[in-house]
Amino acid sequence: MNPRRVSKPIQIGGVTIGGDSPIVVQSMTKTDTRDIMSTTTQIKELEEYSCELVRVAVPDHEAAQALKRIKKEVSLPIVADIHFDYRLALAALAAGADGLRLNPGNIGDPGEVTLIAKAAKERDVPIRIGVNAGSLPETGDPMLPIAKQMVAAVLKNIRLLESLDFDRIKVSLKAFDVPTTIEAYQDIAERIPYPLHIGITEAGTPHAGVIRSAVGIGTLLSLGIGDTIRVSLTAHPREEVIAGYEILKSLNLRQRGPVLVSCPSCSRAEVDIIGLAEEVERALAKVAKPIRVAVMGCVVNGPGEARDADIGIACGKGKAVLFKRGEPVGVIAEQDFVRVLMQEVERF
Amino acid sequence: MNPRRVSKPIQIGGVTIGGDSPIVVQSMTKTDTRDIMSTTTQIKELEEYSCELVRVAVPDHEAAQALKRIKKEVSLPIVADIHFDYRLALAALAAGADGLRLNPGNIGDPGEVTLIAKAAKERDVPIRIGVNAGSLPETGDPMLPIAKQMVAAVLKNIRLLESLDFDRIKVSLKAFDVPTTIEAYQDIAERIPYPLHIGITEAGTPHAGVIRSAVGIGTLLSLGIGDTIRVSLTAHPREEVIAGYEILKSLNLRQRGPVLVSCPSCSRAEVDIIGLAEEVERALAKVAKPIRVAVMGCVVNGPGEARDADIGIACGKGKAVLFKRGEPVGVIAEQDFVRVLMQEVERF
Repeated sequence: MNPRRVSKPIQIGGVTIGGDSPIVVQSMTKTDTRDIMSTTTQIKELEEYSCELVRVAVPDHEAAQALKRIKKEVSLPIVADIHFDYRLALAALAAGADGLRLNPGNIGDPGEVTLIAKAAKERDVPIRIGVNAGSLPETGDPMLPIAKQMVAAVLKNIRLLESLDFDRIKVSLKAFDVPTTIEAYQDIAERIPYPLHIGITEAGTPHAGVIRSAVGIGTLLSLGIGDTIRVSLTAHPREEVIAGYEILKSLNLRQRGPVLVSCPSCSRAEVDIIGLAEEVERALAKVAKPIRVAVMGCVVNGPGEARDADIGIACGKGKAVLFKRGEPVGVIAEQDFVRVLMQEVERF
Repeated sequence: MNPRRVSKPIQIGGVTIGGDSPIVVQSMTKTDTRDIMSTTTQIKELEEYSCELVRVAVPDHEAAQALKRIKKEVSLPIVADIHFDYRLALAALAAGADGLRLNPGNIGDPGEVTLIAKAAKERDVPIRIGVNAGSLPETGDPMLPIAKQMVAAVLKNIRLLESLDFDRIKVSLKAFDVPTTIEAYQDIAERIPYPLHIGITEAGTPHAGVIRSAVGIGTLLSLGIGDTIRVSLTAHPREEVIAGYEILKSLNLRQRGPVLVSCPSCSRAEVDIIGLAEEVERALAKVAKPIRVAVMGCVVNGPGEARDADIGIACGKGKAVLFKRGEPVGVIAEQDFVRVLMQEVERF
C-alpha cells in the first residue's frame, strides 16, 4: 500500500473530500429527477446505507426546478450532473446544488465554463471536472492514447478554472477499461493538487461490474490514489454503496458493519460451511457495529483465523471451539453454532 | 500496470505456470475426496467453466487412495493439498498427483520435507510452498509483522528445497487482510525466481468475498505479480472460477466469453436500462466467444461506448441506434432490442 496522495480538500455541503478526511462513498440516483417523490425516497434510502454524497442528473430545466424541492427534503449533499447545456448548471446552482459535475466532452466552451465558474464561486460550490473515455472532447488529439486524451481534456478545463481564480476543483477520469483508467489517474495524480473522484465507468451488471470496479478502484486506492469513490453498476444504487464500502473495508480504509471471515470449505470440513456461512451472513446483515467474525471449517487455519477475529468458531465434527478476542472460551454443538455466535456478537 | 514479473516456469500436468504463459485460473474441490463420484463430477463441472487446475484436499490415506481413481476419470491436472502428515504427500504422489501443496505451518520438519522433495523429484512433480497467515509456523518470530513472518516461513522452506536441488517450486502467501497479502507478495516477488500463486484466503461469502478477492488479486496483477490465481469463496467452486476470469478479463489478461459494458442508468435514461442489461446478460451467458457488447442508456457516453464495442446499442426514447464494429448501422425499436442485439452477436 502506498501512502495516500496529498490533496487539497474541498467541501461539498458538510462533507470534506480530500486531505486526510475519510474516503467518501457516493452514488447517483436512477430515478427521473423530475419525479420529486421517487428521487427523494431513493436519496433517503441511500443515506440509510451510509451513502455520504449523492449525484443527481439534471437533464433539463424541469429537473433543475425539481432539485430545489428535493434539496428541502433531504440532508445528503447533492451534486448536480450537467451535460451539454451550461444554463442547466446555472439553474442547478440557483436550486441549491452543493456541487456540480461538468463533462469537458460536452461543456468545454471557455465562455460557458467561465459563466458557470463565476456563479459557483459566488455560492462556494465546487466543480468536478469529470471526463469519460466514452465522451471525449472532439477537440483533442485522436492519435494520443485514450488515457492521455482524458488527461489533456481535464488539464485544459483546470487551467481555465484556475485562470478564473477558481480552485474548488475535484477531478475524475473514468473508462470502462481498467488499465486505461489506472493509467489516467496515475498521470493526473502527479500533475494537480486537487482531490480525485475514482471509479470505473459503465462497469456493468452487479456480478461482473462489481469485480471490474473492485479491481480498478482497489488498485488505485492501494496506490494511494482516490478521495471519493463511486461504484457504477447497472443496478439499484444501494448496491453501489454496499460495494463501495466493501472495497474500502477490504483495504482497512473505512469500517462499516461486520466483516465475515469464512473459509472456502474443502474435503476437510466436517460441517456444511457454505450453508453455515450464509446463515451467519444473513444474521449479521442486521448488525451495525464493526466486528470481525470468523467461521472456519477445520483445524488448518481455523484456530488461527478464529483467534484473530473478535468472535470466531473453528468447526470440527458436530461441534466447534468458540473464540472471543483471541481466546478459546468453550465448545459448542452444531445445532447451537449460529445462535451462540450471534449471542456473542450482540454482547461484544 | 507494471510489466509482468519474470518467473521460472513450472509444469503441472500439461499446464505451464509462470514465464510468459497465460495466468492460470484454478480452484479446489469442496466434496469429500473419498467420495470419488462427487469429486469427479465436481472436477468435470469446473473444467466446463474453464478451470485449468484443480486442488483436492488429501486429509487421510483413504483420500490418497481415492485420488488414484479420480485421476483416471478426469483430465484436469490435480494438486494434492497436504497438511500435517508428510506420508500423505508420499501417498498422493504414488496416486498420481500432478502437484503438491505443502503448508510450512504444519509440515516444516526438514527430514519430512526432504523425503517429500525426493519423491516429487523422481516424478517431476512441482511443490507449492503455501503459507497462510492463519497457520504460521510456531518457530517464527512472533514480534515480526505478519507479512514478514509469512515471507520468512516461505524462504526457510525454499532454501531447504534448493539445498536438495529441487527447483520446481511455486509459492503462495495468503492472508485475509488485503494489505498484508499485498505486502507479503511484493516482498517475496523480489527475492525468488519462482512463479507465484496469488489469492486472498478465507475471503468470505460470494458478495463480500468476491470484492475482497478482486481488490487483492487485482492489485497484485496490476503490479505485475501473479502467475496463477485462486479466488477463495465460501460457495460452489464454479463461482471461484467465474470470478477468477472476471478479474483477469477486467485487466485484459485473459479472455473468456462476452464482456458486457452497461451504463449504471440515471435520470437521463428513457428506457429501463437495468432490466434490459439483465436480460442481455442472461442471453449472453450462453455465448462462448469473446465479444464486447454495450448497452447504453443515453447520448452522453452511449454512442462513444457503443462505438468501442463489437456490438452496441445507445438507447433513446423507445428506440436505439445499433452499432457494429464502431459504425452505426440502423435504428431499432424497443421491443426488438434484445432480439436484434443477440442476432448480431451470433452473426459476429
